[in-house]
Amino acid sequence: MLPWSAELAGRFEQTTYDSDLLRGNPLGDPHERPVLVYLPPGYDDSDQRYPAIYVTMGYTGHVGMWFNRTPFRQPYPELLDALFATGDVPPAIVVFVDSWTKYGGSQCLDSPGTGQYHSYLCEEIVAWVDATYRTVADRDHRAVTGKSSGGYTAMVTPLLRPDVFGALATHAGDAAFDLCYRPEFPARARTLRDKYDSSYEKFFESVATRTGRTTNEDLHLLEIYGYASAYSAEPDGTVLLPFDELGVINPDVWARWLSRDPVEMVREPQYADALRSLRAVWIDAGKQDEYYLDLGATAFQREARRVGVPDDRLHFELFEGTHGGIEYRYPLAVKWLAEQLAD
Amino acid sequence: MLPWSAELAGRFEQTTYDSDLLRGNPLGDPHERPVLVYLPPGYDDSDQRYPAIYVTMGYTGHVGMWFNRTPFRQPYPELLDALFATGDVPPAIVVFVDSWTKYGGSQCLDSPGTGQYHSYLCEEIVAWVDATYRTVADRDHRAVTGKSSGGYTAMVTPLLRPDVFGALATHAGDAAFDLCYRPEFPARARTLRDKYDSSYEKFFESVATRTGRTTNEDLHLLEIYGYASAYSAEPDGTVLLPFDELGVINPDVWARWLSRDPVEMVREPQYADALRSLRAVWIDAGKQDEYYLDLGATAFQREARRVGVPDDRLHFELFEGTHGGIEYRYPLAVKWLAEQLAD
Amino acid sequence: MLPWSAELAGRFEQTTYDSDLLRGNPLGDPHERPVLVYLPPGYDDSDQRYPAIYVTMGYTGHVGMWFNRTPFRQPYPELLDALFATGDVPPAIVVFVDSWTKYGGSQCLDSPGTGQYHSYLCEEIVAWVDATYRTVADRDHRAVTGKSSGGYTAMVTPLLRPDVFGALATHAGDAAFDLCYRPEFPARARTLRDKYDSSYEKFFESVATRTGRTTNEDLHLLEIYGYASAYSAEPDGTVLLPFDELGVINPDVWARWLSRDPVEMVREPQYADALRSLRAVWIDAGKQDEYYLDLGATAFQREARRVGVPDDRLHFELFEGTHGGIEYRYPLAVKWLAEQLAD
Amino acid sequence: MLPWSAELAGRFEQTTYDSDLLRGNPLGDPHERPVLVYLPPGYDDSDQRYPAIYVTMGYTGHVGMWFNRTPFRQPYPELLDALFATGDVPPAIVVFVDSWTKYGGSQCLDSPGTGQYHSYLCEEIVAWVDATYRTVADRDHRAVTGKSSGGYTAMVTPLLRPDVFGALATHAGDAAFDLCYRPEFPARARTLRDKYDSSYEKFFESVATRTGRTTNEDLHLLEIYGYASAYSAEPDGTVLLPFDELGVINPDVWARWLSRDPVEMVREPQYADALRSLRAVWIDAGKQDEYYLDLGATAFQREARRVGVPDDRLHFELFEGTHGGIEYRYPLAVKWLAEQLAD
Repeated sequence: MLPWSAELAGRFEQTTYDSDLLRGNPLGDPHERPVLVYLPPGYDDSDQRYPAIYVTMGYTGHVGMWFNRTPFRQPYPELLDALFATGDVPPAIVVFVDSWTKYGGSQCLDSPGTGQYHSYLCEEIVAWVDATYRTVADRDHRAVTGKSSGGYTAMVTPLLRPDVFGALATHAGDAAFDLCYRPEFPARARTLRDKYDSSYEKFFESVATRTGRTTNEDLHLLEIYGYASAYSAEPDGTVLLPFDELGVINPDVWARWLSRDPVEMVREPQYADALRSLRAVWIDAGKQDEYYLDLGATAFQREARRVGVPDDRLHFELFEGTHGGIEYRYPLAVKWLAEQLAD
Repeated sequence: MLPWSAELAGRFEQTTYDSDLLRGNPLGDPHERPVLVYLPPGYDDSDQRYPAIYVTMGYTGHVGMWFNRTPFRQPYPELLDALFATGDVPPAIVVFVDSWTKYGGSQCLDSPGTGQYHSYLCEEIVAWVDATYRTVADRDHRAVTGKSSGGYTAMVTPLLRPDVFGALATHAGDAAFDLCYRPEFPARARTLRDKYDSSYEKFFESVATRTGRTTNEDLHLLEIYGYASAYSAEPDGTVLLPFDELGVINPDVWARWLSRDPVEMVREPQYADALRSLRAVWIDAGKQDEYYLDLGATAFQREARRVGVPDDRLHFELFEGTHGGIEYRYPLAVKWLAEQLAD
Repeated sequence: MLPWSAELAGRFEQTTYDSDLLRGNPLGDPHERPVLVYLPPGYDDSDQRYPAIYVTMGYTGHVGMWFNRTPFRQPYPELLDALFATGDVPPAIVVFVDSWTKYGGSQCLDSPGTGQYHSYLCEEIVAWVDATYRTVADRDHRAVTGKSSGGYTAMVTPLLRPDVFGALATHAGDAAFDLCYRPEFPARARTLRDKYDSSYEKFFESVATRTGRTTNEDLHLLEIYGYASAYSAEPDGTVLLPFDELGVINPDVWARWLSRDPVEMVREPQYADALRSLRAVWIDAGKQDEYYLDLGATAFQREARRVGVPDDRLHFELFEGTHGGIEYRYPLAVKWLAEQLAD
Repeated sequence: MLPWSAELAGRFEQTTYDSDLLRGNPLGDPHERPVLVYLPPGYDDSDQRYPAIYVTMGYTGHVGMWFNRTPFRQPYPELLDALFATGDVPPAIVVFVDSWTKYGGSQCLDSPGTGQYHSYLCEEIVAWVDATYRTVADRDHRAVTGKSSGGYTAMVTPLLRPDVFGALATHAGDAAFDLCYRPEFPARARTLRDKYDSSYEKFFESVATRTGRTTNEDLHLLEIYGYASAYSAEPDGTVLLPFDELGVINPDVWARWLSRDPVEMVREPQYADALRSLRAVWIDAGKQDEYYLDLGATAFQREARRVGVPDDRLHFELFEGTHGGIEYRYPLAVKWLAEQLAD
């Protein structure tokens, strides 16, 4: 009963998936991962096949948080179920994928700094879902969506693997790194200088003494390190920071970050082709987003139009809102994706 | 597996309790309520009886939120279990009680504005727990604890019912209402003036149009209304606000609030007697608490000492911290309570 | 030449007035004070007599600051001159009075804590102005105006001395002390606790080591002390604080503050009579005023209407704006006052 | 008398200088400019010659603001006089130069967007000072100093004209543009988008309707435009912005900004030579500077050491403080400069 819980029309199955690709990952993070699968109303009473929508995580998020309850709101899984319970939306299977690491996330990329999270998603999880559930097992019936770092994943995954995903929805996804990440480097450099002798090593030593009491400042430092682990780790796993002890950019490392920026990627022909091939591209963000991801969203949209994504396959929207508390946006995108993926 | 979940040494049972006292409550809130009970390691392998510690909710909290997961932290239930798993603490049963209302909470008081939440706790839940679990069923082996509005409940419940509870722990509990509540009235009056023609009725109409999109400003307005419902509702349920359209205090209504202020209550002999009778009083708060509940905690402690609570039954501590992210404090208090309640 | 300076149509005279009443004031502040007098265009070419408008200071302000220049703005004296230079406004003499003290101000009251600033204004300065300049030397042609603490002075001076002043204009004047002052006491008590062992003595010792480097936090503590010096000093000069080391109000001292609150004063018959007798009452404030002086202004206006100040003598306005940067409001009030005071 | 004014040991002369170089400047700003000259104690009683220290303005500052008074502080001119009044410092002449424009400043550079402020300083003012006052009229006895944009001027002027200036002191000077300017572009782009259709033209139309009521947001937008006028104006005066409507950097324009960044300039041999030739280089900034100018100061110092400025000619210091309220630093630097410039 609300507000404590909701009756669902469909149902969720949570499985622990044992990943070969994540085994022995450089951070020693678990290779056994929860996967949460939503089966829409009617799934158990038919032999219908369904499109599959994959949901990825924002930074510091993991699959164990999807059912977190907040006052006067319902968790996304319940909003999702309510959407499909209306019967007005073509049914779909929704898969919640985990990409947590010790640093709080992996951007769901393959990196020698964190592990093979991209391949884990595209190879292992997709195959397992298709083998386990009655999906329409082709890229034209597969979408990926997420918010923030999950929105990032939603943008780059179909660019990298258009053979696997044919649609995407990004909510306030990391994009235009010059706008969303780079402005924060001076503040991070200052914190490192004032508290940790400009050394991440000393920061990690310190944070280890604060188990369960991590501060926002800690999270900010972790986040940058996590991004560096995803974007600019050396083959041996060494993490290269994009700025020096004064916050001054390191152009070589920054170039590696930019090569993973969705906006920059679309300038390369193969990624432009991939983007143009998608059946549905949903882009939105709040106009008061604290990380200026509305500007990033607009920039990604500008690139999408430039490379020829047609209007009927592109939904772009800036809404009134900040970075937080926007989960009401997710079902809007899922509805549109489900309609676009229905044949 | 962490961070998604933890193996527990003890176990939790969640029950839906059907309350007679909450049936027909004025807000139409559910009379069926979740109760979450923690049974410590060894419970199932013995016929031992245990002290019982009751945990109440902060404002906007309900029992469905205790298992919410946040990055780099564990939920309180897991911290609690880890505490008892050490074997260094006398085992206890811990009961998580719900007092949610449409306004976000009830302060766990009896009020014609919200319902009989105080009696529901002291009469129904305690009786049901004693009947269902192997507790030591007397006030000397019963404690109540909580944070914020839950800390408020922890302070006033043993004052009102020293026959039921013999110990308390409050973390940043609402106290010294002149310091924690009153300074916010001008800001609330201004919001009401600027957006709702100084009318709570118009506010409620407006907020009803924003389901799932409640703002912080909404929560602030709801909170004050919820407190008024708990502290200053008329017998017919009419809620009296403690301030007028300019934020100017209404002395009569404010006197009713103050009569429920823990610090003021202790000035009355029967409550002073009750407080003095307790076996354990834990009071703490963060020195940077945004609501100045460190000052309230100090004031309550000052009263406790004045009326003669002896040093060995009183733990008082101001720590470095704000109002949020202090769940690491809870097991510290539970440990001390468990020790104090063990014979 | 602008922006460095402006040609004036009228002229300013600055005199150092040697006050008998301020001689030997308890803080050892100077008894010689600057007085700045504006003479409107035409003053030197006629023998006309003029109404006089007295301008008092905000907290931490002194007469030496009126010509401070800020980017893209002109100082009040230049705005004032530009007003009269239009020729559309009945000319008036404008007198800028100083009431600075070691604590940053005196509220222009008589107090054993600071000195006889009220009498200095009403007796000495007014007499000297009337003797020195061609004023219409009666209360019906004398107004007092100011902003913030100067607005406070503008409200209470005609209440206390309706024989001297017959009109007032207050911009964001201190009023409804429960709303503007009291909410800040918890924060001040906390600062004193955390940095000065809850001792103003230690604060004053500390601040003396920071000459020329006073912080905003220092100013906040000084301000409260200055108000206490004005509102609640004992006959021997001892300053009584309205709150204790926890920020808890001292009701006796607070009652003394409230007895100097313009809104409360009007509830007394003699002050109500005084207010009703005025020829012009201008009240305004910004709706985003950080000290909620818009609420205070509204409360004072409500009292003014209640006691019968007629509509044609009362100008009330809440405008979009905060507490700072509102000097454009001053000439609006001066224009209206000049019109109301012209026979 | 303090706090209204101070008796001076030396004296100030303010002159209006009619500049040939500023005549017909592109913004139509005045070519007649105030120059304020401080003559130290003893100047009038000797025929001694003195070193000259030139003080330039921060953004939105002009010479008419130097005597602005703030509570519990003295204006810089009085602090300066007090320094020389001690007799412990080799006397010097101090010249306060104006470089105000319609946009709030010019960085004291030559630019087709604003005018010949650099040449005005280096050619006209220096020549006039040497002709008018008893200076030691060579570069080895001439320093330039300032704060914020004035610190910027102090850094670049001796790089550009080592024949004119032989020493510098910068307090929180604009440097490392990637750190101090660039992070603000997304916020500016967003304001322009949300309020002015991404058009500076519309912004200027709007701000013209708010005379005397400029907001902080206005100042932020003006500031960026002013910098662009100084750093990246075309020969015909057209101002090129360094970012597009999304805040995305324009690399060509940004390269022009960077070519005026003190830290970048020192990488060019002629500027490195110039810096190495200086007799005194004072660099400081507050560690909490809101614009990260502590990082810029450190970067400039790093370059100075790299190119071989010897330790005894370099003073570098990060102090506890923000960007504002640091005028107590100025006399510290002047004292050191005066000592370094004395033979």
